[in-house]
Amino acid sequence: MDACGLVVEYNPFHNGHQHHLNEAKKESGASCMIAVMSGNFLQRGEPAIIDKFYRTKAALASGIDLVLELPYVYAVQSSDLFAKGSVQTLNEIGVSSICFGSESGTTSNFISSYQIFKEREAIFKEKLQENLTSGLAFPEASKYAYKEIGLTSDAMDLSQPNNILGFSYVKTILDKSLPIRPFTVQRMKSGYHDQTIRNSIASATSIRKQLFHDGSITEQTAVTMPEETSKELKTYHDNTNIWHNFENYFYLLHYRVITMSATELAQIHGVDEGLEYRIKKTAQFAMSLYDWIKAIKTKRYTWTRIQRIFIHILTNTKKEDIQPVKENPTVPYVRLLGMTKKGQAYLNQQKKKMDVPLISKLSHNLDPLLAVEEKASNAYYSVLHPSLQRKFIGQELGPPIILK
Amino acid sequence: MDACGLVVEYNPFHNGHQHHLNEAKKESGASCMIAVMSGNFLQRGEPAIIDKFYRTKAALASGIDLVLELPYVYAVQSSDLFAKGSVQTLNEIGVSSICFGSESGTTSNFISSYQIFKEREAIFKEKLQENLTSGLAFPEASKYAYKEIGLTSDAMDLSQPNNILGFSYVKTILDKSLPIRPFTVQRMKSGYHDQTIRNSIASATSIRKQLFHDGSITEQTAVTMPEETSKELKTYHDNTNIWHNFENYFYLLHYRVITMSATELAQIHGVDEGLEYRIKKTAQFAMSLYDWIKAIKTKRYTWTRIQRIFIHILTNTKKEDIQPVKENPTVPYVRLLGMTKKGQAYLNQQKKKMDVPLISKLSHNLDPLLAVEEKASNAYYSVLHPSLQRKFIGQELGPPIILK
Repeated sequence: MDACGLVVEYNPFHNGHQHHLNEAKKESGASCMIAVMSGNFLQRGEPAIIDKFYRTKAALASGIDLVLELPYVYAVQSSDLFAKGSVQTLNEIGVSSICFGSESGTTSNFISSYQIFKEREAIFKEKLQENLTSGLAFPEASKYAYKEIGLTSDAMDLSQPNNILGFSYVKTILDKSLPIRPFTVQRMKSGYHDQTIRNSIASATSIRKQLFHDGSITEQTAVTMPEETSKELKTYHDNTNIWHNFENYFYLLHYRVITMSATELAQIHGVDEGLEYRIKKTAQFAMSLYDWIKAIKTKRYTWTRIQRIFIHILTNTKKEDIQPVKENPTVPYVRLLGMTKKGQAYLNQQKKKMDVPLISKLSHNLDPLLAVEEKASNAYYSVLHPSLQRKFIGQELGPPIILK
Repeated sequence: MDACGLVVEYNPFHNGHQHHLNEAKKESGASCMIAVMSGNFLQRGEPAIIDKFYRTKAALASGIDLVLELPYVYAVQSSDLFAKGSVQTLNEIGVSSICFGSESGTTSNFISSYQIFKEREAIFKEKLQENLTSGLAFPEASKYAYKEIGLTSDAMDLSQPNNILGFSYVKTILDKSLPIRPFTVQRMKSGYHDQTIRNSIASATSIRKQLFHDGSITEQTAVTMPEETSKELKTYHDNTNIWHNFENYFYLLHYRVITMSATELAQIHGVDEGLEYRIKKTAQFAMSLYDWIKAIKTKRYTWTRIQRIFIHILTNTKKEDIQPVKENPTVPYVRLLGMTKKGQAYLNQQKKKMDVPLISKLSHNLDPLLAVEEKASNAYYSVLHPSLQRKFIGQELGPPIILK
């Protein structure tokens, strides 16, 4: 059985993903569709609106055969590490192709851009460093560095968020000569950063915004996602009384920061260049997380980067916790969240060929990264009532979700 | 001007304290009454019901001339360190006597007990260690060790909480040959651990219990304290909407513990002998702080000791933070919380003779212990709305309270 991989966050699984999945099926010709999905915290530095188990159910019900978890230490990171973790997870499970959505939509452009990039990588790195030193934020700095080596927006617009991610997947695959064929499908209509729902193909951002605004699933949001997603969103809300919003965590973050020394804060992953003093100083006046991030923000620090740092503070993820990720040649394990019958058959076929352990529970004490996962999961559920926390964390120790 | 010192927690200032103060005035003949008071966290490992500034106002209005703060690192400790910090603070400000309440009520008994103790200290220590090793909790272990050296309850009952504290004051004074005369007054009627109010002389425990039960000051509690105390309790509640109860902090403590590794937890002051694993394990099932402590409790760990540990976790106070306290020959500074005109005159007289700095604000960056104070203050106010937190922490930077 042949498999095609998708890298996703599924927050929640919506019509854009359904389209992406259908295109991937068609184009790859593979019979098994595998998603590697961020866990409870997302790449842009936010908690997922509902937990990874409920999102897994929605994904399986919508046509994914196997859902694997992208470990926290890869998920809440900038595009290069995010791509490294995702692609390597899919490689360990043996996919023959990876399909990613992009603004560009033309696979050959990614391949040719990679070739240009490799030829002029030294110049790119030099320029990037120059731009960073001059005080630019990473996205701006890399945009100008790409331009410098001829990767202008005509060939490939590397200032677009999905193009950036896609380019990182391609780089990982080609750099490591992985036996995987990358291809892209064009993302439909709504942009990554769109704030409002314009039609039934809406961005995750706009859907989430509308959900928080409405406090329930209305007609307007229902049309943007498969019925199974609506059902999972509703069940989660019924069971917990919340959809996770980063503001829910403000009081915990604030408490933690004001009872930490600057030295301790500087041990947290991402807190560099004296940012610990800025975070502590602004804590005195912050009345909300939004206020707080706004007060910290400078040209050098993008909103997303600060959000990621706050997630690492929330989960108490230290620089030393991340170190193994930078040193490991591949992911240390593959975590299975859920599967269909077909996914299960594929797994049975692949299991014995795998080079890293396949795990389904957090209890396996086989890797230090699992301690990070446990802290992240604990932190995510911290805003629930204690009795619910216990129940929901219990999901980490249960068997994988199987869609019959 | 001559001064007499009192060691207190004032939580809140009640009729028992008023009696103690009056007796101390009479017996000492001093014209200035000085209290060294625990800050926002108390010796038994609990947050004070209202903050130290409001308690200072009540104390000044009830006849105390000068209120000094016992630093956190001495206050939330067992009796020996608590006594060391208190007596040395009073010594630095130049009191000529210290008056303490006790169940015994006979000063000569404390002095003769001290003499017996000094003669047989080596045996006491040996027996104490034996008892601790056999698994007894500290209070039990020391009770039997005292008995062993002839300090039985006939001469001096050293299993009574105020006798224990008083004996520690006397030990500190006599061990260091401080120029201070210790004397005791008998505590009136209600015992330290009494849970219910029996009459207008009630224990702090029973008053606090009743206040939390009623949610406001009723006739029953009003008769147990000076009017000024009722007023401060009421004003604090009006301004913040709470009286601080350790249960208010459960969700913060729980969050912190479940996002900490056992190794990090073991760095907290008081977390010894593998207790970090027990605290983390029981966290999974705790639905309240009460439940949690109950689950941790063993013969070896008293309720109070576990409560103190939870305060240190809440305030993120590490073993390394406490180290200087054990090494310093005396307190590093004297912190002034409030004074009457008379107290102010006394201070003017003493200021130049002092060997350690006199400070009134937390902003003085003169000692590492002030960073611990700041964290403790931040943690205490963490259960208030962010805008109130800012306002109340602001008191730490204001001038001392002066009663005109």
